[in-house]
Amino acid sequence: MHIPVVEKITKANDEIASINRARLDEAGVVALNLMASPGAGKTSLIEKTVPPLTADLRVGVIGGDIATTLDAERATLAGATAVQITTGGACHLDAPMVRRAMEQLPLEELDLLVVENVGNLICPASFDLGTHANVLVASVPEGDDKPFKHPRIYRGVDVLVVNKIDLLPYVDFDMERFQRGVRSLNETLETFELSCRTGDGLAPWLDWVRGRVRTAAPVGRGAS
Amino acid sequence: MHIPVVEKITKANDEIASINRARLDEAGVVALNLMASPGAGKTSLIEKTVPPLTADLRVGVIGGDIATTLDAERATLAGATAVQITTGGACHLDAPMVRRAMEQLPLEELDLLVVENVGNLICPASFDLGTHANVLVASVPEGDDKPFKHPRIYRGVDVLVVNKIDLLPYVDFDMERFQRGVRSLNETLETFELSCRTGDGLAPWLDWVRGRVRTAAPVGRGAS
Repeated sequence: MHIPVVEKITKANDEIASINRARLDEAGVVALNLMASPGAGKTSLIEKTVPPLTADLRVGVIGGDIATTLDAERATLAGATAVQITTGGACHLDAPMVRRAMEQLPLEELDLLVVENVGNLICPASFDLGTHANVLVASVPEGDDKPFKHPRIYRGVDVLVVNKIDLLPYVDFDMERFQRGVRSLNETLETFELSCRTGDGLAPWLDWVRGRVRTAAPVGRGAS
Repeated sequence: MHIPVVEKITKANDEIASINRARLDEAGVVALNLMASPGAGKTSLIEKTVPPLTADLRVGVIGGDIATTLDAERATLAGATAVQITTGGACHLDAPMVRRAMEQLPLEELDLLVVENVGNLICPASFDLGTHANVLVASVPEGDDKPFKHPRIYRGVDVLVVNKIDLLPYVDFDMERFQRGVRSLNETLETFELSCRTGDGLAPWLDWVRGRVRTAAPVGRGAS
């Protein structure tokens, strides 16, 4: 009985997502949708990613959260132009929310836009925001069984960041079991193992982000 | 436009929740609704809670997950009578799901029923399952900002378990800031700080569970 309603919502969402993507392409902005459990380290990853990129890239951040503007404040301190969406209870971002946030950003003056989704492994996986790549941030203390338990989000992402590898000695986390789960769902998923706390493993991730922006640039911005 | 639909769903849910609670009371079973982020340690807490209780209590577990029966298997190994609900994508348990699971359990032969909700800090907070107490499992690596970011669930729970305190030396977690956030939302919330991995702090939590079952017993089971 509820399915028609859900389908209608998803269709309307996808239409606005396409508009968002066209708007970003027109402005020459590459956008990443950062998804994760609460506390996996989305905001920490933004804090570690933005400063080294600001030498050659202009970075915007849209922070999505149920309540508080804490994340946007942290992103601003890191050197990004940030806008906060407080969903007031909604468990995921959708394309209309991102569209409204994009209107508050100087898109023509940005190269990269990071959208930090609401901390939730389930509902965000169902909503296209109009971004160019879905990035999942997993973290070691969550446990090595998460791909098996949340197959949909692992199937739907383009990049996986495994954060908090500095905690590997102190928790029961079998990286081999975890990676086996990941591969069974998304065989070619590009994966970065890193620690936002110690900085270990950040360089390859930063290279990936830079490469992603460089590759997209000629398409998005014409020959200028 | 969607509000009437949501209200209708919630009202239908609450009616079945009341039926579930009446059925549990009739059978003399105390039921706990365990909620948490993915990987905070709900299943680990069940694994550590069930064995010491089985000397004097009969424990049932309903495990809720998007996919897999891993949790129910772990609960069974721990000595509980377990049933798994796989929601197939739904981001929370609701009262009808719990009713169907309860039908598969020998309620008259149980004293305690632990319902392990889907790993999600948002949607589960809106659905009464018919249980007697809401227990939130937080974990140290998630960060000390979670009460500020997820006020609804912190406001709505009766007991808070802070798991993974063995990781305190290795992460940036300010327990004072965390507890300040908790108190601002739920001033008298009973809190247990513990580690399922090391066993530290489990005894007071087990005493609370035992006390909860003992207190409810005369009401639920008459004078027998």
